[in-house]
Amino acid sequence: MTDVQPVIDRVRFASDGLVPAVVQQWDTREVLMLGYMNAEALRRTLTEGRVTFWSRSRQEFWRKGDTSGHAQYVRSAALDCDGDTVLVQVDQVGVACHTGTRTCFDADRLEVVFGEAEQTEGGASS
Amino acid sequence: MTDVQPVIDRVRFASDGLVPAVVQQWDTREVLMLGYMNAEALRRTLTEGRVTFWSRSRQEFWRKGDTSGHAQYVRSAALDCDGDTVLVQVDQVGVACHTGTRTCFDADRLEVVFGEAEQTEGGASS
Repeated sequence: MTDVQPVIDRVRFASDGLVPAVVQQWDTREVLMLGYMNAEALRRTLTEGRVTFWSRSRQEFWRKGDTSGHAQYVRSAALDCDGDTVLVQVDQVGVACHTGTRTCFDADRLEVVFGEAEQTEGGASS
Repeated sequence: MTDVQPVIDRVRFASDGLVPAVVQQWDTREVLMLGYMNAEALRRTLTEGRVTFWSRSRQEFWRKGDTSGHAQYVRSAALDCDGDTVLVQVDQVGVACHTGTRTCFDADRLEVVFGEAEQTEGGASS
């Protein structure tokens, strides 16, 4: 049994008690989705081998794959430099998105102005 | 000039007016950091070729790299399935983290119980 309390204590949860968790496929490095965890969801994620989130809309825990079969098996996790974001690398069974796409970012690509080092000198402050 | 207002209108900003933005290196697919954007920061990011965030602590815009030189040049962007997270793929100059590491997730790897399909059957609900 891993004692994760020292980790939990280090996390800077937002005022709603949640921290965003970026979920990434460990080998292809696709960003699959972003979910939210409270302290208990993070504890379960770090100790149970499966990713658990806190649903903001339903106000309940949900373990990815329990209804869909599309489980996320934990491979690694990291806390960011200021302790307010978690990155979880997983092995995603099937699709990550409830809409049926591999990732939650597959269906709505946005048009962008392509940035290059030469074209954007000067301008904004800070 | 790209008209991004239809995109902005589609984003489900949180009650604080912000949306989390996952920033990923476009070729290696490293997750570099997570920042927050309000509507104007997102508009700038989509139209100016450089990533702009809204700083929650300083309550001001900041364009990554203006002080550090470590700019993020935009390559692509996507909105997730429920419109409340942005993924931005960039070409990161130098390091993404203000601490000097390549990504903001390099310094604090967490101990995890490794998940595998066989060991975690049954258990939680939903």
